[in-house]
Amino acid sequence: MTVLVVGSVALDSVETPFGKADNVLGGSGTFFSASASHFAPVQLVGIVGNDYPIADLERAFKDRPVDLAGLERADGASFRWRGRYRHDLNAAETLETHLGVFSNFRPKIPEQFRKAPFVFLGNIDPRLQLDVLTQVQKPALVACDTMNFWIESRRPELLELLGHVDLITLNDGEARQLTEQFNLVKAARWIMDRGPRLVIIKKGEHGAFMFSRDTIFFAPAYPLESVFDPTGAGASLSGGFMGYLARVGPDGLNEATLRRAVVYGSAMGSFAVEKFSVQRLLEVTPAQIAARVAEFHQLVSFEHELQGAGA
Amino acid sequence: MTVLVVGSVALDSVETPFGKADNVLGGSGTFFSASASHFAPVQLVGIVGNDYPIADLERAFKDRPVDLAGLERADGASFRWRGRYRHDLNAAETLETHLGVFSNFRPKIPEQFRKAPFVFLGNIDPRLQLDVLTQVQKPALVACDTMNFWIESRRPELLELLGHVDLITLNDGEARQLTEQFNLVKAARWIMDRGPRLVIIKKGEHGAFMFSRDTIFFAPAYPLESVFDPTGAGASLSGGFMGYLARVGPDGLNEATLRRAVVYGSAMGSFAVEKFSVQRLLEVTPAQIAARVAEFHQLVSFEHELQGAGA
Repeated sequence: MTVLVVGSVALDSVETPFGKADNVLGGSGTFFSASASHFAPVQLVGIVGNDYPIADLERAFKDRPVDLAGLERADGASFRWRGRYRHDLNAAETLETHLGVFSNFRPKIPEQFRKAPFVFLGNIDPRLQLDVLTQVQKPALVACDTMNFWIESRRPELLELLGHVDLITLNDGEARQLTEQFNLVKAARWIMDRGPRLVIIKKGEHGAFMFSRDTIFFAPAYPLESVFDPTGAGASLSGGFMGYLARVGPDGLNEATLRRAVVYGSAMGSFAVEKFSVQRLLEVTPAQIAARVAEFHQLVSFEHELQGAGA
Repeated sequence: MTVLVVGSVALDSVETPFGKADNVLGGSGTFFSASASHFAPVQLVGIVGNDYPIADLERAFKDRPVDLAGLERADGASFRWRGRYRHDLNAAETLETHLGVFSNFRPKIPEQFRKAPFVFLGNIDPRLQLDVLTQVQKPALVACDTMNFWIESRRPELLELLGHVDLITLNDGEARQLTEQFNLVKAARWIMDRGPRLVIIKKGEHGAFMFSRDTIFFAPAYPLESVFDPTGAGASLSGGFMGYLARVGPDGLNEATLRRAVVYGSAMGSFAVEKFSVQRLLEVTPAQIAARVAEFHQLVSFEHELQGAGA
């Protein structure tokens, strides 16, 4: 089962307390694909300028099932982001953002991508996210991401989008901004009242919640001893989540599968931050992923008492 | 099995977005006792001034096994704290602190308390915490708390204390301040290298880690829809943790028990914040505690796949 992702394909320049990298492969679509492709074939739709090192991207994905047929090459500059992390690795300081050709992105879903059963609408203008939905055919599950900029500038369109997706991922700050509810349980309910039956709220180093109408699931972020570069952790979580769902397939979309998908996503997020760019995501092995998932289980598991009770 | 706690007994005045309370029962010793006494008998050592409404404290604990024989009444004013929470309920804004007689507190452990198998040294001057240890007889487990003020002003004494305790509880900011390690895994290891075999790092609404030499356990904070007043959540967690250990007894101090103790502690912390002061802790029932613990289990549990693996 295939995952279609529409997202940014960028060049990142990143400084962390541990080193720096210039013009490396980045963008949410890139991280998502590197992560999801461990579990299922990925179809990537995005845009790059004629300065983009396409050969590097192709080389990165040469052993992975990532179809780049939907990657548009436009005249102009690629999306570039330059950022810095200080010791508090949870907060990126954006030094420069050049949208380049990404600012004129009008996603065109290739014919052969339109039947993808799992669709992830990365963080782009909600009007374009809505437009993508007119191009695809009855996906089993549609998820979207968004950000503060769209919550502010495209609120009506974003609310309309909520009526057309099964799931939304956002971070805690965005959830609060969108819903004007400080409490995340209330924020999630506010969102579910407007359409999505699932809400994933990402809290960076503090883990992620998945809310449904009747249940709450929480996965911590894995307590790594060395976080090298946090860039792409969120997109890698989303990629692992959607990829895992696609591997199981539309008939297995139950609570148990969804929970495991959040854990696989969190595991992929924890790998993403171990090196610059998508480097660690490309080299991680199935055995390492399985071991990390087992570590997540160990991290939170506790046995109920047989006798129950509190006093 | 009994828990001995040395801690503050105060009068709190608190404002939250949902209401205000003036001169209500507060202090870490009070919250700890209200929480721990659901699981085991508690012996409280603290100090109050002659303005303290002792009758209110006795009434609060009349149905609970909290022995107040170690509560010293001194000439002078009681410890008073006045604080405010805004919508971000994770951060208290301290408006006034009057230490009163607490600033001259020299804990005297009553003879009949000196054999308590579980000892919790609440957040007081490390020199006094060390002094308490000279007064007790071979406890099975000694835990201590501390805070930024002591980390700054009594660093050598605090480091000495670490060599004499089995466990320390601190929040993430304090752990970073003490160890000068931003990464919490490294911070915990730094602390364990100096004595304690267990480190509990409390992250407020983001949950709590328990580190040992070989394992990491994480318990999220329960995602409550209404947090009413966060005051005392940390002390209630410590109380539930120690109380649960005492209920199981020194012979049951294994990893499974310790993990359950963190969850019981987190459950008690989640009750503490539902009302002002110790009100909710006093009225909560064993069945409600058991139900909340079951909800914690449900919150984080996921099934491993039978086939394992990641690709």
